[in-house]
Amino acid sequence: MHYQAWIAKAAKQPMVLESVDLGPLGAEDVEGAVEHCGVCHSDLSVLNNDWGFSQYPAILGHEVVGRVTAVGPNAKGLQLGQRVGVGWSSGSCMHCHQCMSGSHHLCPQAQATIIGHRGGFASHIRAHWAWAIPLPETLNVAEAGPLLCGGVIVFAPLARFAKPTDRVGIIGIGGLGHMAVQFAAAYGSDVTAFTSSESKFEEAKGFGANHVVSSNDSAAISKLGGSFDLLISTLAPNGRLHVVGAVLEPIPVAACSLILQQRSVSGSPGGSPVAIETMLDFAARHTVAPQTEHFPMSNINEAFAQLEAGKARYRIVLDADC
Amino acid sequence: MHYQAWIAKAAKQPMVLESVDLGPLGAEDVEGAVEHCGVCHSDLSVLNNDWGFSQYPAILGHEVVGRVTAVGPNAKGLQLGQRVGVGWSSGSCMHCHQCMSGSHHLCPQAQATIIGHRGGFASHIRAHWAWAIPLPETLNVAEAGPLLCGGVIVFAPLARFAKPTDRVGIIGIGGLGHMAVQFAAAYGSDVTAFTSSESKFEEAKGFGANHVVSSNDSAAISKLGGSFDLLISTLAPNGRLHVVGAVLEPIPVAACSLILQQRSVSGSPGGSPVAIETMLDFAARHTVAPQTEHFPMSNINEAFAQLEAGKARYRIVLDADC
Repeated sequence: MHYQAWIAKAAKQPMVLESVDLGPLGAEDVEGAVEHCGVCHSDLSVLNNDWGFSQYPAILGHEVVGRVTAVGPNAKGLQLGQRVGVGWSSGSCMHCHQCMSGSHHLCPQAQATIIGHRGGFASHIRAHWAWAIPLPETLNVAEAGPLLCGGVIVFAPLARFAKPTDRVGIIGIGGLGHMAVQFAAAYGSDVTAFTSSESKFEEAKGFGANHVVSSNDSAAISKLGGSFDLLISTLAPNGRLHVVGAVLEPIPVAACSLILQQRSVSGSPGGSPVAIETMLDFAARHTVAPQTEHFPMSNINEAFAQLEAGKARYRIVLDADC
Repeated sequence: MHYQAWIAKAAKQPMVLESVDLGPLGAEDVEGAVEHCGVCHSDLSVLNNDWGFSQYPAILGHEVVGRVTAVGPNAKGLQLGQRVGVGWSSGSCMHCHQCMSGSHHLCPQAQATIIGHRGGFASHIRAHWAWAIPLPETLNVAEAGPLLCGGVIVFAPLARFAKPTDRVGIIGIGGLGHMAVQFAAAYGSDVTAFTSSESKFEEAKGFGANHVVSSNDSAAISKLGGSFDLLISTLAPNGRLHVVGAVLEPIPVAACSLILQQRSVSGSPGGSPVAIETMLDFAARHTVAPQTEHFPMSNINEAFAQLEAGKARYRIVLDADC
């Protein structure tokens, strides 16, 4: 079998295409031929070792869409040729309290797809069967990648906390935020988008925002104080502030602002296999889709340069061409 | 390996001890040497084919406590010698939406321990690893059996619906009800026990009931109308009426009584592996234990006669002696 992958050999170096030996397929694993793979800002963070736990050589890419090409003897529920997606995690122990509760994404042994495991900027990807999520037939395959990480990251807090009767604010209209606005609008909530970029005002309304507020307009923001049931911050850092942007600096929180209005501050990683399945089904029903720029995978380094320059509108997807 | 089991060869016949060939152990299964096994009224229902889906020959017994004697090559999380319990279910598909959500007990392919599978009135029991639940160290092993079916059946609706601030009514103080009273009391709720048997009034208080009302005292019952947040009926058939007693006759429900006070009627089977684990931990912390009568397993038919006569106070446990 001929496997190829884009290898990051050290921090901040261009990735190079090389042959790789994947070795024998794990008994509970499946293998898929990659068709598309989204580029997430965390791929760039791992490439640059921003978080300090990158492992090189690394094969990045964790918004992977492809067809199953091999099924381990103990893998369950998947057939050859089936189209599946793999997100931030590609395995978990399957028997701890979290896995047995359906919260596999909180497993202490959860395997990150791009840390010590081979990701999707490659001809093939492998994952535990539980983490290779079947895609709904009606989902646009070429645009599904960014849903698998970014999508579930913003969908999970909505599914956990939001009601259609809620006022929901989305802070930051970028790769995550533009999907969050679409999901919150489809959820039936009243959606306010916060962005510092005037060029995104109309786009945010196009994604379904009922209101758009400039993050630079402190008077407008003050007027909104206390009016949200749920605020999802896709950046760094009022109801509930739910943080999904992984910044290293602590978020200053005034205890009194939590206590007096019984507010909470919360966070979450991606989602369990069932959360991803539920999100994909919801996205397919409501035609929630990331707005993407496509590059052939052979232009991977140009795609990363575009991302690093902050120019991606809104998610980048690499299409297999090797 | 020498295996023995008490076999029900046909409906309503005494069980006979015979050697059995268990065949090769399933790859994901574990085997345990039975130490104790509770006798549940549903064992009697299956023995008598009351529900019409018994399969003979049958090996009954689904409140099984024992030590792991063999572990299949693909079984997870269990060691030889570990003490485990097996309840109503002994297997599920592990990959459907219900299993992946942590609601394995709702799996369409869930394997009932005593229907088409060999139960615990035997020297050994086999089960899928996920359904062989490790027992907390501090739990009384000889009394743990009845918790595994009857215990989780009454604990599950409490865990799903009850708050410590609630007024909870338990209808029927028998094998299930006497554990329900203990669990509800340990839950911190205000507990009212309903029983038709005056001889159980003091016992119900001993189990933790704050109030005991005679099921025959319609004046007293009328006065309580509308005062409960949760009513758990362990019999056949007023807040929420939650039914766990499996009777075949329909329960008459007046729509207006649901609508005007936004009441609900609900039901549930046993619990998922995590629900059983949580219940066992809660029982161990609060020393919730069934009140039992013990028989050596060789007196199994006498034990069933005692159960059928309605004389069990409150659960029967068989202790291995073969």
